Amino acid sequence: MRHGVSELINKLDIDKISGLLEIPGYRIAGAIQRKTLQYVRGMPEFFRFDKPMSTVEGGTSIFIEPFDIIRGFPKIPRTLILYPALKRHFTSCGSVIVEEKMNGYNARVALVGGSIVGLTRGGFVCPYTTEKANELIGRDFFLEHPDLVLCGEMAGPDNPYVPKSFYDIESLEFYLFDIREKISGKPLPVMERKALADNFGIRSVRFFGEYNVDEAHHRVTRIIKEFGDSLHEGVVIKDPQMRLPPVKYTSTQSNCADLRYAFEFYNDLGRDFFFPRVCREAFQSVEWGENEEDRRKRCQRLGESILLPMINTINRKKQGERISETVQIRVRKLETARKFEEHLHILGMDAVFEEPEKIGDEYLVRIKKIYMSTNDKTESTLRGELWS
Amino acid sequence: MRHGVSELINKLDIDKISGLLEIPGYRIAGAIQRKTLQYVRGMPEFFRFDKPMSTVEGGTSIFIEPFDIIRGFPKIPRTLILYPALKRHFTSCGSVIVEEKMNGYNARVALVGGSIVGLTRGGFVCPYTTEKANELIGRDFFLEHPDLVLCGEMAGPDNPYVPKSFYDIESLEFYLFDIREKISGKPLPVMERKALADNFGIRSVRFFGEYNVDEAHHRVTRIIKEFGDSLHEGVVIKDPQMRLPPVKYTSTQSNCADLRYAFEFYNDLGRDFFFPRVCREAFQSVEWGENEEDRRKRCQRLGESILLPMINTINRKKQGERISETVQIRVRKLETARKFEEHLHILGMDAVFEEPEKIGDEYLVRIKKIYMSTNDKTESTLRGELWS
Repeated sequence: MRHGVSELINKLDIDKISGLLEIPGYRIAGAIQRKTLQYVRGMPEFFRFDKPMSTVEGGTSIFIEPFDIIRGFPKIPRTLILYPALKRHFTSCGSVIVEEKMNGYNARVALVGGSIVGLTRGGFVCPYTTEKANELIGRDFFLEHPDLVLCGEMAGPDNPYVPKSFYDIESLEFYLFDIREKISGKPLPVMERKALADNFGIRSVRFFGEYNVDEAHHRVTRIIKEFGDSLHEGVVIKDPQMRLPPVKYTSTQSNCADLRYAFEFYNDLGRDFFFPRVCREAFQSVEWGENEEDRRKRCQRLGESILLPMINTINRKKQGERISETVQIRVRKLETARKFEEHLHILGMDAVFEEPEKIGDEYLVRIKKIYMSTNDKTESTLRGELWS
Repeated sequence: MRHGVSELINKLDIDKISGLLEIPGYRIAGAIQRKTLQYVRGMPEFFRFDKPMSTVEGGTSIFIEPFDIIRGFPKIPRTLILYPALKRHFTSCGSVIVEEKMNGYNARVALVGGSIVGLTRGGFVCPYTTEKANELIGRDFFLEHPDLVLCGEMAGPDNPYVPKSFYDIESLEFYLFDIREKISGKPLPVMERKALADNFGIRSVRFFGEYNVDEAHHRVTRIIKEFGDSLHEGVVIKDPQMRLPPVKYTSTQSNCADLRYAFEFYNDLGRDFFFPRVCREAFQSVEWGENEEDRRKRCQRLGESILLPMINTINRKKQGERISETVQIRVRKLETARKFEEHLHILGMDAVFEEPEKIGDEYLVRIKKIYMSTNDKTESTLRGELWS
């Protein structure tokens, strides 16, 4: 059964939402019509903003019964050079705090109608994230702070969204980087957030330190260079009071790891991944005043990150393989895996779930994601079809 | 004075055009309305198809007074691998002819209302191409063959469209690769075309040979490999009878030269240039069964073609330079330079013409093309603005 637009609008108290989000009511109704505010059936039933709308972030979710709103996680602006960008952006702060940017998927955890729910960046209730949040975080924090949202990175090998993991994590861990108010999205100051998390035994992302704004670019450069060849994604630089938006900055290793991943599935992911990352590489090389040898190595690394995975994919296809990516989840309840399959289906992903494997009191479920476009294009090109 | 749609439609005998191009009249009128069939004021006055429409190529021009039609030059499909693509595409031919694909700009030359006109790929009458066509080709051919169009590559240093030239040409030369009928676009068989051109002293692109279809992929591989580090763009492989569309194939040197060019102006050109070329590199590496060392070199070459020009651009901007490209034209009449300036303006290009320099009986005019997007993005990033 499909829902008509007016039926969907009737599910919401438009006036109330209009007041809370500071958006005129007619625009909310219009967003439902255009599916910018998308209805998602299920338990719980909710709406999600597919895109930002005036000051409301994309990924903001509105729950129907009981009514609740969880603001989306704001996009963090990125800098391609550290100086003068940090000085310029944080001009009103005396100091900045530098934390690690981890390589996992962005998750928000909150209490909705008495239950803990795990939301993805897009504002979907994810059954897997929900099970993991219940297990990893528990209820204690929320019983005292029902109006706060824990924002963090889910990282580890049992990560079905961003599979390349390079941390020493057994299954999946939650690393907190923000605590925000449910409805306003307002964040707590960094040290207050850390203290609160420590109180409840909630793990935070790595804290590198608080630095004078004038020397922050030197400190960050050193941190990034010390990452060396170990795969750390990068850092997030924050106003300690969290009044200004944070800024992110990533390492060349991370840029290249992303490219290696994207070009394995080049016709699905390559195009979008490429351009921003190559810009980061160029500006970093200039800012670091690299000599010819460093530059040569950077070019080699970039070229290899792009071509080698593509060549590998073409060779695999030549040998008749299907181009897919295997990710995995680890669940206590098989029901969660079944719900997660539905969830990926809603997201429009082509995924094949393998038979669950019992490990201890959990089930490991391997999932094959099929990249259709890369499969088709590679196959037809090898068959001798022309590119027009 | 702007022209209304009905006024524009009145300039054309829609029924006649509909019959000649085999497109229903209402679709022609619709195309004028949507500006797919765009009116271009000037001497001569004409319409051009901005995009293909059913079987009519984009770049097809319709002249008003006297009435004439010159079909656009068809897009040549490309192959990323030679085997089995050539065998598959040319299955109905016993042999194929291989000619050089040159690095210049595609020009069509024809007689319209008693005058020789030079058209660009887009179907614009280009005043510069027109002057050069008059000078390089002359009228003899057209007096005997008023219904034929000479299609070829304008190459050399005085090329304002595609500036990187690597041939031993003093100013600009025309290299014929096709002769086609004006209205139908039907091409002459290759050897017939060559003989006709030779008769009139018209230079043709390099002819590599006619090969059995079954061994064509070996022959082309050898030709491409023998190009070595010398900058040849690639080859076009043709059905000798020209009943099947030709196929193009390019060298890694050419792919990388294009990338070096595009990434100098990365924010204007980089994104679109990148993806197709990197696909060509990957498939060629697989088809040639490269060893690790060859592959390493290819990656290095690719990485350097992308990053080094960008780094160079950022450094130039850091030193306060404006990011631009200098091209040049050489004309007998200053009037042609003035008209060419108008022509670039119609194309929406940001170009600054320098003072003409008299060389012999000609004028050399340098033209600075400004790449605004690359200038702005590089400047703002260096100033410390964030990328959102």
